[in-house]
Formats: sequence, structure tokens, C-alpha cells
Amino acid sequence: MRAVAAHIYTALSQSARAGLIEEGTTGLLADLTIASLALLRQAPTRDLISLVPGKAYFGFLREAHMSRPVRRDLFDFDLVEQNIGRFRDRTYTALPENELQRFLYTMAISYCCATDLAGRDDRKTPATFFEYLIGNIFGREFGVNPRTQVEVLNLDMRATLPTDFVFDLGQEHRRVHLPVKLSTRERVVQVWAHQKVLDGVYGVGRFRGVLVVLTETKVDKRSLEVIEICLPEQWRVYQLFIAQLFRVYYLDVPNRYAALRDVPPHIQVKYLSQFFGEKDALIGQ
Amino acid sequence: MRAVAAHIYTALSQSARAGLIEEGTTGLLADLTIASLALLRQAPTRDLISLVPGKAYFGFLREAHMSRPVRRDLFDFDLVEQNIGRFRDRTYTALPENELQRFLYTMAISYCCATDLAGRDDRKTPATFFEYLIGNIFGREFGVNPRTQVEVLNLDMRATLPTDFVFDLGQEHRRVHLPVKLSTRERVVQVWAHQKVLDGVYGVGRFRGVLVVLTETKVDKRSLEVIEICLPEQWRVYQLFIAQLFRVYYLDVPNRYAALRDVPPHIQVKYLSQFFGEKDALIGQ
Repeated sequence: MRAVAAHIYTALSQSARAGLIEEGTTGLLADLTIASLALLRQAPTRDLISLVPGKAYFGFLREAHMSRPVRRDLFDFDLVEQNIGRFRDRTYTALPENELQRFLYTMAISYCCATDLAGRDDRKTPATFFEYLIGNIFGREFGVNPRTQVEVLNLDMRATLPTDFVFDLGQEHRRVHLPVKLSTRERVVQVWAHQKVLDGVYGVGRFRGVLVVLTETKVDKRSLEVIEICLPEQWRVYQLFIAQLFRVYYLDVPNRYAALRDVPPHIQVKYLSQFFGEKDALIGQ
Repeated sequence: MRAVAAHIYTALSQSARAGLIEEGTTGLLADLTIASLALLRQAPTRDLISLVPGKAYFGFLREAHMSRPVRRDLFDFDLVEQNIGRFRDRTYTALPENELQRFLYTMAISYCCATDLAGRDDRKTPATFFEYLIGNIFGREFGVNPRTQVEVLNLDMRATLPTDFVFDLGQEHRRVHLPVKLSTRERVVQVWAHQKVLDGVYGVGRFRGVLVVLTETKVDKRSLEVIEICLPEQWRVYQLFIAQLFRVYYLDVPNRYAALRDVPPHIQVKYLSQFFGEKDALIGQ
């Protein structure tokens, strides 16, 4: 089977490189979502055994392949298909909070699931699609394209450091450092390390660190059990001893990370839908 | 084809978990090396096209499979086969510097190459073998087994942090934080981040950070060209702005990392063979 709507993905990839927040890129993100949903509409589903308290998951099926786990209460075909025009013109942000949560989750996971069903063990294009989507969402709210490298000028050295997305909103505002991951697992320390480099090069507080993650679920393909892989104690240590992230937004917030808000150092882990109401606080002085 | 001497690897794995520096573990590291060399003795080789100034590489072949690149001047069947007893009784460290360099390189890369020829795309067992070998070498020099986690006790929190090897040599000496990698690439920032955590939790200077790496070579399987993937400017930024590594030892030092000694912040990148002569400086006050 060919990759899902490979021609749309290729066009998106070219358009994103030219400008992540341009109308063409926005349109292709919408088109690829709709094409993925059409494919998923035809796929049977199977209930999974959720070991995550309070959350139910299913998988899409196609021949011998099963998609990553999908959260039942957050996946909504109709909502996205009927409101995709609002993604294009950016009025989707006015959806009620609970609909916005489902809208964003469904957009983010549809292409990933459709790719899973192609059975090619393709890990790169879902990750890249998710980066484009999140970069487009934040970029359009801030009104600027992100950069993916920063200059280091330091006495006798001059280096260019590759980074995750960085948004420069002018002297009036803080800059935003926006790493984007499908899941974090044991490599998440990189995020705090990059924040530490930015703090060191430019001064503490110049860049607000904002991590965006899809989910931490993992399914055992034999037992069909779904778990969330979380390392909350390590996150606390990183936040205390490496650098400080200002926000962590998830499309599917893991219970154990949500609880980090309540214990020192109070890492703020929220649903991405909450970003739109607090975006001014993110970049404020 | 079955994995190389799978029964020896399994025994090594069990023995290493019981005690990395015990005689049994040392013997199994030697046995697995000799079994790997016997397999490689039967394999034809192919010269590779080295784009690395001053270094020639070849690959071992078996059916459609080719091993990772092997440095011609550092790989020495006879030296290791004839002196493997000196690994067991630890007199190998008295070999002349240039022989010690070849001895260590050949021991480190033989099992990796033999595994490559099995064609199972096995990335885990070569990495684990290399960790056992380096942990055994350092542990026997220091006379203690390493630990792989540290306790964090901090006001209202208590956490256990998984780490790379950590050697505790008593109050008279500095502790050693020893990350071990087959190659580093873009994930190397983790090493500085973990050092930063140890500096933060225990105080700067309490743990000496010592990174050990096999090589940074990469071969293009079509063109047969060998390159070294190095990010020296990023290393300088990490050393300046995250934490300070005391030494980086390679089995095959990349030219561009060796040059880091000569520019600020003067990261000390050396051959592993040089460790034995300066081990007291590593742990001294």
C-alpha cells in the first residue's frame, strides 16, 4: 500500500519549508487531515484494554496492521470534517473548550493513524506532520514563522545552533522556544538541555520554554493493553536542576504529568486547547 | 544465522548484572571477543573509501551483509588473540601505548562487527557489550563496581535517578560519572544534561564527567564512502553553557574532536589508551 496521500504530504513538506504559517501550508494541513479521516472512516476499529485510569482507547485496523491507540472521548470525525474550514480561517480557536480539545486531538492523530495502517513502520512523516501542525498553530497565533536555529556569538567563537522551533516576537515580548514531540520517553532531557543552552547564551528568561507533545501511550500488540509511560520524578529533577520550562502542552495529558502542577517545582502541564486563552501570558514580560 | 556465540553473550549478561568487575565477567568479555575474532577470521574484507584524512577503513563481509567500518591501522587479530590472557589478569595495561590502543580498539569493535554480519540489525547487544567492556575496564582500575542510579534527596522530595555508570571511590576521591556510547551524534546533549543534574544535586566538582565513545564513523553502503559525523561547535556550546566534562575518551578519536583541545573551552578528547596513565588525575582532588 502506498503512503497516505503521498502527494499531499510532499506538497505540504515543500510549502512548510517555504513558510510554515502561509495560507498554502495551512490548507495542506487541512487537506491531509481530511484525506486521513476519509481513509480511517473505512477502517474497522478494535477496543483496547486501557490500564490508564479514566481513559478508553481503541485502534484502527487494516489487514494485519493496527494504528497507535486513539482516545475514544477525544477522537471526533464529524467535528473536524464539519469545521475544517474554521482551521483554515483560524476561527477554530473560538470553539468551546471541550470541542477545541477534540478538534486538536483528532487533527493531530489522524495522519499518524493513517500512516500506521500503511504498515511501513514510518516514524518520520508522522513526527514531521505533527511538527508542521504545531508550528503552524503557534506561528499563526503569534503572527510569525518560527526559526530552527539560533546564532551563538561569544567572545572568540561564532556558532549556529540547531534548535526546535524558536519564535521571535520583537523586543516587546519574550521569545518562545517550542520543542515538539510525538512522545517524550527517556530522551526528554534534551528539551531541558536545549532550554539551558538558550538561558546560558541569551540570559535566563529571554526564551520561554514550551514543550508540546501528542501523547505518552504505548500499546502491547499482543495483550492489547494500553499504558502511559511517564517519568514524573525525573521531570521534577530536570526542572529543578537543569532549566525551567514554562508550559508543557499535551493533546492527551497523562494523568501522572497533570499531577506535577501540584508538587514542587509545579511544572505546568495542560491540554493544548488551553494555550489560546493564555498565549499573551506566555510572551508577556 | 544465529547471533554470534549467543550462549556466551547470555552468560556475560547474567554475570555483568551480578558484578561487572568480577573475574567471571572479565573472562566472558575475553571469551566473547575471541569467539568474535574467530568468526571474523573467516570473513572476507572490502576496502572502503575513506573521506577521513589520515585514516583507512575496511568492512568485513558475509553474504549480503557488511560490518561497520573498521580502522585498518587499529585492528589487530594477532595482538588480541596472543594477549587475551593479559586482559584477564589486567597486565594488558602495561602494553606499549600504540599496542594498547590497538588492543582496546580490536576488543571493542570485534563483537560489534561479528553481530553486524549476522544481518539482524541488532543495535542493542553491541551497545550493551561495549558498556560492559568499558564498565569492566574502568571498574577494575578503580577497584569498585559502578552503580547505575543515584538518589536525589531534596527537601520534600526523594527520587531515584537512572544514570550511566557512576563510580563511588570513597571520601578521599572524586566520584566518576561515566556515560558510554557506540557513537554520539545529535543525542550527545544528554551527556552534558546528566552531568548538569549531578552538579545540581550534589554540587559542582563532586562527579567528574568522563564520556567514552567507540567511533563517529558512518559508511554509505552504496558508495562505500566513510565519513565521521562530528558537531564540534555544538560540543563547545554544551561545555560552555550546560556543564563541564572532564575527559572524552574514544577508541577511534575523530580528527575534529581532537582539535577541540586547542580552542576554548578546551574539551579534552583523547584515546582511551591514555586513561590508564592519568587515572589518578581523574579522581584526584
